[in-house]
Amino acid sequence: MKFDTPINSKIVDEKLEANRITNVGKSSIREIKKLVDDIEKASGEKFIRMEMGIPGLPAADVGVNAEIEALKSGVASLYPDIQGIPPLKKEISRFVKNFMDIDVSPDSCLPTVGSMQGGFAAFLTTTRRIKEQNTVLFIDPGFPVQKMQCNVLGIPFERFDVYEYRGEKLREKLESYLSKGNISTIIYSNPNNPSWICFTETELKIIGELANKYNVVVIEDLAYFAMDFRKDMSKPGEPPFQDTVAKYTDQYILLISTSKAFNYAGQRLGMFVISDKLFNKQYPDLKRYYNSEYFGHAMVFGTIYPLSAGTAHAPQYGVAALLKAVNDGEFDFVEVAREYGEKAKIMKKLFTDNGFEIVYDKDEDKPIADGFYFTIAYPGLTGDELNKELIYYGISAISLESTGSDRTEGLRACVSLVQRSQFPALEERLQKFHEHHG
Amino acid sequence: MKFDTPINSKIVDEKLEANRITNVGKSSIREIKKLVDDIEKASGEKFIRMEMGIPGLPAADVGVNAEIEALKSGVASLYPDIQGIPPLKKEISRFVKNFMDIDVSPDSCLPTVGSMQGGFAAFLTTTRRIKEQNTVLFIDPGFPVQKMQCNVLGIPFERFDVYEYRGEKLREKLESYLSKGNISTIIYSNPNNPSWICFTETELKIIGELANKYNVVVIEDLAYFAMDFRKDMSKPGEPPFQDTVAKYTDQYILLISTSKAFNYAGQRLGMFVISDKLFNKQYPDLKRYYNSEYFGHAMVFGTIYPLSAGTAHAPQYGVAALLKAVNDGEFDFVEVAREYGEKAKIMKKLFTDNGFEIVYDKDEDKPIADGFYFTIAYPGLTGDELNKELIYYGISAISLESTGSDRTEGLRACVSLVQRSQFPALEERLQKFHEHHG
Repeated sequence: MKFDTPINSKIVDEKLEANRITNVGKSSIREIKKLVDDIEKASGEKFIRMEMGIPGLPAADVGVNAEIEALKSGVASLYPDIQGIPPLKKEISRFVKNFMDIDVSPDSCLPTVGSMQGGFAAFLTTTRRIKEQNTVLFIDPGFPVQKMQCNVLGIPFERFDVYEYRGEKLREKLESYLSKGNISTIIYSNPNNPSWICFTETELKIIGELANKYNVVVIEDLAYFAMDFRKDMSKPGEPPFQDTVAKYTDQYILLISTSKAFNYAGQRLGMFVISDKLFNKQYPDLKRYYNSEYFGHAMVFGTIYPLSAGTAHAPQYGVAALLKAVNDGEFDFVEVAREYGEKAKIMKKLFTDNGFEIVYDKDEDKPIADGFYFTIAYPGLTGDELNKELIYYGISAISLESTGSDRTEGLRACVSLVQRSQFPALEERLQKFHEHHG
Repeated sequence: MKFDTPINSKIVDEKLEANRITNVGKSSIREIKKLVDDIEKASGEKFIRMEMGIPGLPAADVGVNAEIEALKSGVASLYPDIQGIPPLKKEISRFVKNFMDIDVSPDSCLPTVGSMQGGFAAFLTTTRRIKEQNTVLFIDPGFPVQKMQCNVLGIPFERFDVYEYRGEKLREKLESYLSKGNISTIIYSNPNNPSWICFTETELKIIGELANKYNVVVIEDLAYFAMDFRKDMSKPGEPPFQDTVAKYTDQYILLISTSKAFNYAGQRLGMFVISDKLFNKQYPDLKRYYNSEYFGHAMVFGTIYPLSAGTAHAPQYGVAALLKAVNDGEFDFVEVAREYGEKAKIMKKLFTDNGFEIVYDKDEDKPIADGFYFTIAYPGLTGDELNKELIYYGISAISLESTGSDRTEGLRACVSLVQRSQFPALEERLQKFHEHHG
């Protein structure tokens, strides 16, 4: 029984019991979501909800309107082109040129059913290129479902937390894995979910060089594309560009989700970009599973097609129109997303003013950016303890441990669903927390 | 060089060469499509196009309009419920009750990204239930991409052509496979793509009984739902109902595509129905790959979620509205599809009047129905020869061999894209073919 907590502790304890949760830190995001839904209903109090990494902004009209037009023109009854509709492929190619300064043919640009399907397809196909190289290496922390994908496919994986290996230290650490000869594929997200670190040019160069040296494919998960708000990457065709390992190696697959960068999460359409070189590379070992030894052909016709025969048709038109507006400089998608960074700046200060620490706080020597996520810890409390304690204060988040981080004292905070109007309440609750926990 | 053929034989030979096709019968559907596109362009002649099994009718307004409304209300930015949106689950449950007379809870009814994803998920999960039972048995002929799915997943499979094993003969044939103890899953399509046979009650009973005896899961692919036009299955809640193995076993997964029955192919939304019993069954061997030994839980959270995190959101609203109209008796989807059967009847006669034979012609003692496909052969010609010859006569189809049929003399004809206005041209060309080939 706790006294003087913003949320009635009796209700919290009741709902913890009813949901059979003993350890909030070990619960899944959906379990935490349900717990908080129940407590909100029973207490009448609104939480500061930081557990769900979902967009909090509407999808751009230009995309939605184009989808509606496509539906009216009859696309619902027509199977989409297996390789993606040509206007979409073209706009993806323009997009990566405009915002990453890399040259990729539209042939190597495909839509997938979210980056979720993109990752699944990438794991499946990259780990079949070369018989001995069958293992995925996760540079953590990361998105736990991707490890679940490897499990369900029976693909072995290894992982390490990059926290202690920033900058040049990354080289030796990576090489310790790659030199064993079993690694096929490296994956990381950048900007990073959950920590919001951004890999530096030094680090991307190391990853690229080692990928070339060891014949490894790099999957770069760019779900928070251009959201390193320390740089203004909003002008098509003008630097600065989104940092990418593609500057250092041709052995890459880019997963560019439309869920957060464009708030198009519902329609399940991710951009999947393979370098032209990799697309056209031949690997005889692919013939064990595919009709072709050409990587791109195996990927498109042998993996992506059997997965779902393409994405829904109308959303391809929606995203093509949206990307066209972005590419033509008519729609500034970065401006829309900037709100996340601005909220993060304010929220981080409220936490650090009240005894909290930012766990992943630096990119080599620079403070990390303000964006979609940040990471917090409180001295003297483990991550699990902190996760549970904050519930009594009307604040929810998820543990870093579940993301593959070794920083077990930390939680991931997502700014997306927190309204600015809730900042006063957040401040009050954090002040009370600090008062009670010293 | 051929003389007096409806299509200039010089052009045909040129395009065969340009497309590097030596054997039309061994070419893929897409290769044949491209060949015919090229010949049509060069010759100015329209083909009787029977190679592509795609819908030729528009999607129902009630579905498209509901999708548009959903987009306007903002669903594009919201992740869909992992288990499918509740209104859709409810309408799928009502649908199988109304049109198959089976009781399945909405919990066990899910949307997948087409039956393509449904089959993929079903193969992956069913073959993990029991360690020794890891093999899929295809009752051919069937949809070749499903074998491709097993290949890409590394799942072993076996197959046989049902042509010689109709009726009671099916029992011994099936048992010869099942008694070995390695079969996990049986799959067939009904009505059948490519042959348009419909499994009889006798046969479904045999399959169901053996599934129970040997602990096998049956995947019933119902892409051509209610299209056995010999029976009027259009009235919700009234017999006759769509025949199903679900009457004889609880070990089933139904794949009900919206592509042909509802002409909703573009939006990639299939209905995936697991029996409540199977959904809640426990298999300890599932723990090798999943967090849960409950089949339904493993399927939803362990397979379908990591595949793509759901289907596009707006199409779920579209199909929910469409199914509601169907369930409420306001929209007769069978009436719309009947056009296929009526075209088939006329086209089959044009072929048989001109020396052609129907390859799969009976369901036990009854003539097969008229529907989306039929199968043809010409005495004295192999399937490959016939496939190529017909090109000179402006008629395209695909070989039965590619579908797993043992009837190598046969081709699959699809009626969908053939316009009634082309019937005179079809008749002329078949008459000329008959004249030239005796």
